[in-house]
Amino acid sequence: MKRGPLTTPDSRSETTVAAIGERALIERIRRRLPSAPSSLIVGIGDDAAVDEGERGMSSVLSVDALVEGVHFDRRFSTLADVGYKALAVNVSDLAAMGSAPRLALLSLLLPPQLPVSDVDHLLDGLLTMAAESGVTLAGGNISKSPGPLVIDVTVTGTVKARRVLTRADGKPGDQLYVSGSIGAAVAGLGWLREHGATGCETPDDTALAECVLRHRRPAPRARLGRLLGRTGTGSACMDLSDGLADAVQQVAAASGTGARIEANAIPIHPGASKWFSEHGADPLPASLSGGDDYELLFAVAHRRRGGMRLVQRQARGLALTRIGELTADRAIRLERDGVQLPMPEGFTHF
Amino acid sequence: MKRGPLTTPDSRSETTVAAIGERALIERIRRRLPSAPSSLIVGIGDDAAVDEGERGMSSVLSVDALVEGVHFDRRFSTLADVGYKALAVNVSDLAAMGSAPRLALLSLLLPPQLPVSDVDHLLDGLLTMAAESGVTLAGGNISKSPGPLVIDVTVTGTVKARRVLTRADGKPGDQLYVSGSIGAAVAGLGWLREHGATGCETPDDTALAECVLRHRRPAPRARLGRLLGRTGTGSACMDLSDGLADAVQQVAAASGTGARIEANAIPIHPGASKWFSEHGADPLPASLSGGDDYELLFAVAHRRRGGMRLVQRQARGLALTRIGELTADRAIRLERDGVQLPMPEGFTHF
Repeated sequence: MKRGPLTTPDSRSETTVAAIGERALIERIRRRLPSAPSSLIVGIGDDAAVDEGERGMSSVLSVDALVEGVHFDRRFSTLADVGYKALAVNVSDLAAMGSAPRLALLSLLLPPQLPVSDVDHLLDGLLTMAAESGVTLAGGNISKSPGPLVIDVTVTGTVKARRVLTRADGKPGDQLYVSGSIGAAVAGLGWLREHGATGCETPDDTALAECVLRHRRPAPRARLGRLLGRTGTGSACMDLSDGLADAVQQVAAASGTGARIEANAIPIHPGASKWFSEHGADPLPASLSGGDDYELLFAVAHRRRGGMRLVQRQARGLALTRIGELTADRAIRLERDGVQLPMPEGFTHF
Repeated sequence: MKRGPLTTPDSRSETTVAAIGERALIERIRRRLPSAPSSLIVGIGDDAAVDEGERGMSSVLSVDALVEGVHFDRRFSTLADVGYKALAVNVSDLAAMGSAPRLALLSLLLPPQLPVSDVDHLLDGLLTMAAESGVTLAGGNISKSPGPLVIDVTVTGTVKARRVLTRADGKPGDQLYVSGSIGAAVAGLGWLREHGATGCETPDDTALAECVLRHRRPAPRARLGRLLGRTGTGSACMDLSDGLADAVQQVAAASGTGARIEANAIPIHPGASKWFSEHGADPLPASLSGGDDYELLFAVAHRRRGGMRLVQRQARGLALTRIGELTADRAIRLERDGVQLPMPEGFTHF
């Protein structure tokens, strides 16, 4: 036997992935990449990748996994909910790029003792979301898992190259808007944790029931994303999968701006306000830092305010709330009546 | 609290996924799908999905995961090997469709205590394969894993719609060819298991060392796949990820044919022959059923034999061996000098 030329583990660096966190890991990977071809309009670090094709049409690609014990708990969600959500979170990533989803690939890691009926339920939910979003399940992969159940979904779509919404194209003075309301999913999960509900129970209170539903079956803003892109109204856009606080910081950092957010303007879901208040917590920071909201944060330039009125009219009852603006100086400010508040951290995976 | 309308687990059916197996699961999912748009040229059940785009160019999409404890063992492969292989197996799927890979998405599930240097090594290998195959890493996702390390890779490419190689277009009388040699990867894994090697040891015997390398770093036949597609030489094609026995059965079943394979013609890797013989096993069935060979099985119609000579000349030293033919009757026959032998099963994941 001889020693091969392969590298051995580097004993000098035993920093763990948990210690440096998801964002630093992504940045570390990005720094390692060779220069990409010019056709790659958007690479690592946005909601999805964008690759320019022929006739100005681009492909948009996103992948996102739901892992049992990390992203879902079978005491709180049925597998139909999990299948629905596994596709919904990817549809949300494409919406944030202004793209219509088209095809999905389903990569399943299944514990060998999982009942086949569980796979059926998972597929029920996934195909419900597919029908709602016009997505075709085109292929995938099934492997054995010695650990948790994992549902990893890739979604592809198209968008006109000059209509792509990235995180990076915001400018100082652009107004910041958020769709719908925030904090619902994290409040719904809080209710489920407190009540130990078993996948099919919901609160009697309607606002809280909405929160639980938002945790189990998020509503990606596919139509809004396309509208913002197609009309050229959005300058920058991102979904709130890791919370509004995170999204504001990410859009500002990618755009090379700061941001000023007016706390009183933030649309906190009534169920979340109620839930956090009843538990002695301030609903504002809890809702700002809570992940799993699949609303869109987007920036609108002053000259696009006409387009914004059009988008408002076509939003079909979805609230679009102005919450602040991008600023020339790089600070991230959360203010209430001119008094500065601390901006909470976003949700991180490690 | 009230009961919601969500479905409850079906207590009548507790058949597990291990009991019905991967292929039946895929078939079960396929039966559940609504009819696909006509632009989906190839859906679930082939090496990759194919979606027709503009100007006769189609998108090809594949996803495949490597799971620690299922697909790799860190005693036997470095993480650089694992990263290399995670992309290679997807490049192989695209090769089997006649497509050139273009973009990859990397979905990582990382145990929180994994050293960051391990992620670096994984990326070393993945980027080596990316450079070798002309693939750009365009995006991905990082999640926490409460269980094994998982590397799930999606690859996309393009192919002219009329040049797509599927499993289903073989005809009776088409000659069957296999590239390279078979059995190497399973023999290499056998050696590693016997010697308990720790990721960087290789056998002194050159043929066996090739087998170990084939297990750690498979060589996808990207150039051959494109050549078979572009010249119109291949009628049906599939990679040998689950072994040659499996591939023959899959191509015949998808094409609605049978197959006759001449055992003496099968190119068993010399290291595999040696390894199995030394361990008292018949190299033929062991090599036929061993997975993880990333060679191509392809069918060639009689009228394409001129094209096949061209492909042979351009194969740059890669052996292309005729091993049998597709037949009108649906039986799968393995023969040695006219005597029928039992055809072994392919590798299955459950």
